[in-house]
Amino acid sequence: MNLEIYDIHMLEKNSVIGILGGGQLARMLCVAASKLGFQTHIYEPDASAPGSQVANVTTTASYEDQEALAAFAKSVDVITYEFENIPAATLDYLERYNSIYPNRKALEVSQDRLVEKEFLQSLGLQVAPYAAFSSRDEFLHAVQHIGVPSILKTRRFGYDGKGQARVLKAEQADAAFDDMKGAPSVCEGFVDFVSEISVIAARGQTGEIACFDPGENIHRDGILHTTSIPAKISASQRMDAVLMASKILNALGYVGVLGVEFFVTKAGLVINEIAPRVHNSGHWTQNGCIIDQFEQHIRAVVGYPLGNGERHSNVEMTNLIGTDINDVMQYANDTQVAIHLYGKAHVRAGRKMGHINRVLGPAYTK
Amino acid sequence: MNLEIYDIHMLEKNSVIGILGGGQLARMLCVAASKLGFQTHIYEPDASAPGSQVANVTTTASYEDQEALAAFAKSVDVITYEFENIPAATLDYLERYNSIYPNRKALEVSQDRLVEKEFLQSLGLQVAPYAAFSSRDEFLHAVQHIGVPSILKTRRFGYDGKGQARVLKAEQADAAFDDMKGAPSVCEGFVDFVSEISVIAARGQTGEIACFDPGENIHRDGILHTTSIPAKISASQRMDAVLMASKILNALGYVGVLGVEFFVTKAGLVINEIAPRVHNSGHWTQNGCIIDQFEQHIRAVVGYPLGNGERHSNVEMTNLIGTDINDVMQYANDTQVAIHLYGKAHVRAGRKMGHINRVLGPAYTK
Repeated sequence: MNLEIYDIHMLEKNSVIGILGGGQLARMLCVAASKLGFQTHIYEPDASAPGSQVANVTTTASYEDQEALAAFAKSVDVITYEFENIPAATLDYLERYNSIYPNRKALEVSQDRLVEKEFLQSLGLQVAPYAAFSSRDEFLHAVQHIGVPSILKTRRFGYDGKGQARVLKAEQADAAFDDMKGAPSVCEGFVDFVSEISVIAARGQTGEIACFDPGENIHRDGILHTTSIPAKISASQRMDAVLMASKILNALGYVGVLGVEFFVTKAGLVINEIAPRVHNSGHWTQNGCIIDQFEQHIRAVVGYPLGNGERHSNVEMTNLIGTDINDVMQYANDTQVAIHLYGKAHVRAGRKMGHINRVLGPAYTK
Repeated sequence: MNLEIYDIHMLEKNSVIGILGGGQLARMLCVAASKLGFQTHIYEPDASAPGSQVANVTTTASYEDQEALAAFAKSVDVITYEFENIPAATLDYLERYNSIYPNRKALEVSQDRLVEKEFLQSLGLQVAPYAAFSSRDEFLHAVQHIGVPSILKTRRFGYDGKGQARVLKAEQADAAFDDMKGAPSVCEGFVDFVSEISVIAARGQTGEIACFDPGENIHRDGILHTTSIPAKISASQRMDAVLMASKILNALGYVGVLGVEFFVTKAGLVINEIAPRVHNSGHWTQNGCIIDQFEQHIRAVVGYPLGNGERHSNVEMTNLIGTDINDVMQYANDTQVAIHLYGKAHVRAGRKMGHINRVLGPAYTK
């Protein structure tokens, strides 16, 4: 029996974790890394990235700058990322010099909605009805097949409701197609859901898996508004969600934290999408668990054992979008609220400026 | 009635907090500041300061470098510090350009053991019996008066048991005096204590006060080893400790977090010492409260309302001193432990390398 089936790269004390992307997720990953004594190096094209405020080092360069990429990859001890839309050529180049967690397969699957759906179906998991197409005629046919309402989504680079067009009536299909501006897209059928939940799941380098309790998500204008823990689901639905997330992690040979969004329907759980990174719907863990999703991700990436993801408190996380940040003093006066701001210099409509975690009380039951 | 008795300087979003000193306390203050969206600028003579790893900007310069001090003071929106032994001339210079919290009075009192004891006594608080002296003869007389065992402590710059000499027998007095190498010192009598506790107290710019629950401290070799919450004291002792800490805060017109160490004796609480900053014995708050001591300090300094210091969990904090850090993997595998490392490059005997917070369970009672 071969016990050494896993190739574990456990980082030495004070090693440097390289992070692609410098937004709020990178910011909170840097804080988590600091708790474990690790240093961080952010690679990000935007010079005013909020993550840089708590990183040891920031490289400000484009994802096409091979010289900067090489210097970055050589100077860090492992590479991870805060967003999935990293160009394949960038990854090819970085991998010459260093390991990237989560792996390429996780990125390839999650960068393309069509590939992701096919992958999930290949595991026997349910996804929303969908159709790919390569022409207007094929699309119009697909809408007929899937029915209305349906939603058109670009295969790549969509997030927070961007790159989407709704088809509420059949006669809107032409205009929706035009909205995509020729970008390869998929058409998704409407899912009649009871609620939306997500599981923040982690897999370590030894293959161990730990999942945080599912949270219940409310979206507004295509952007996550609140996540409440515990989700109002049955014990079997909770177990289903965790097992499905685990199946995905194992199938990908994944290392790190993965966000899995589900529709809860009368016909079981339907996977909406997966994100190969720490996830907005996991921010509640900062005030609900001893080890939060950010530390869990860092632990996986550096080859440490996963931490205890059990929740000690019930929490409601609310995103502060755009001018919501003007309410900060109200939250500062609220004794049950923990504030988490991202240090972004400019407020813009739809921009995630921070979030709050309202601690609802101790978690007596799971 | 004048309601505007307090001069409140509430910082704007994304303001910069200047921190004198770049050790682990600064490091954790930077993390707390980032949660509230503030940026940080550390001023520290040591180029490899662990705080710099999570600060936006670090100025590496001596406390005598007036040019660097002026540039620092002008570039930040408020100044605070992580240690009390800042030269008075440095403070004089910085205050020309910016506000410093906690204030000068707090520093003057806590920089000198004699001044501190006289101040505490002037408030009607009990301190250990002590005597100041200015010659060997006066010292030998003081030892006779106070009795043995007693302990000789330098008036200034002592911490973690440094600058101290014990006098267990009268005949050791001469040698103890020599150990002080002429540094102005005080002789303290032995306090027959049941236990040692500390209160982490905070006062905001409006004069509001919030205290964390007292912790019970165990020292080893003059260095804090563990802090356990709750302390095994009576409700009236707990109330006493909080009221005494509040009296000190008000008397100093203090803004920020103050650590107050007490001996619990059969004759009531005796104050050992005060520290005008976040305190090692308050590290448990990171895993025991919604708002920890670091955020509480930042809130006070930036003019925010103080946060909720109520504890949700019982915690035992243990310092990782020197090679204790080699046990980190053991703690990483312990499901009730949160690890907090300081990112120090070199292990030295007696050096604080990190701490762990063991979460003992929910706090049902105060």
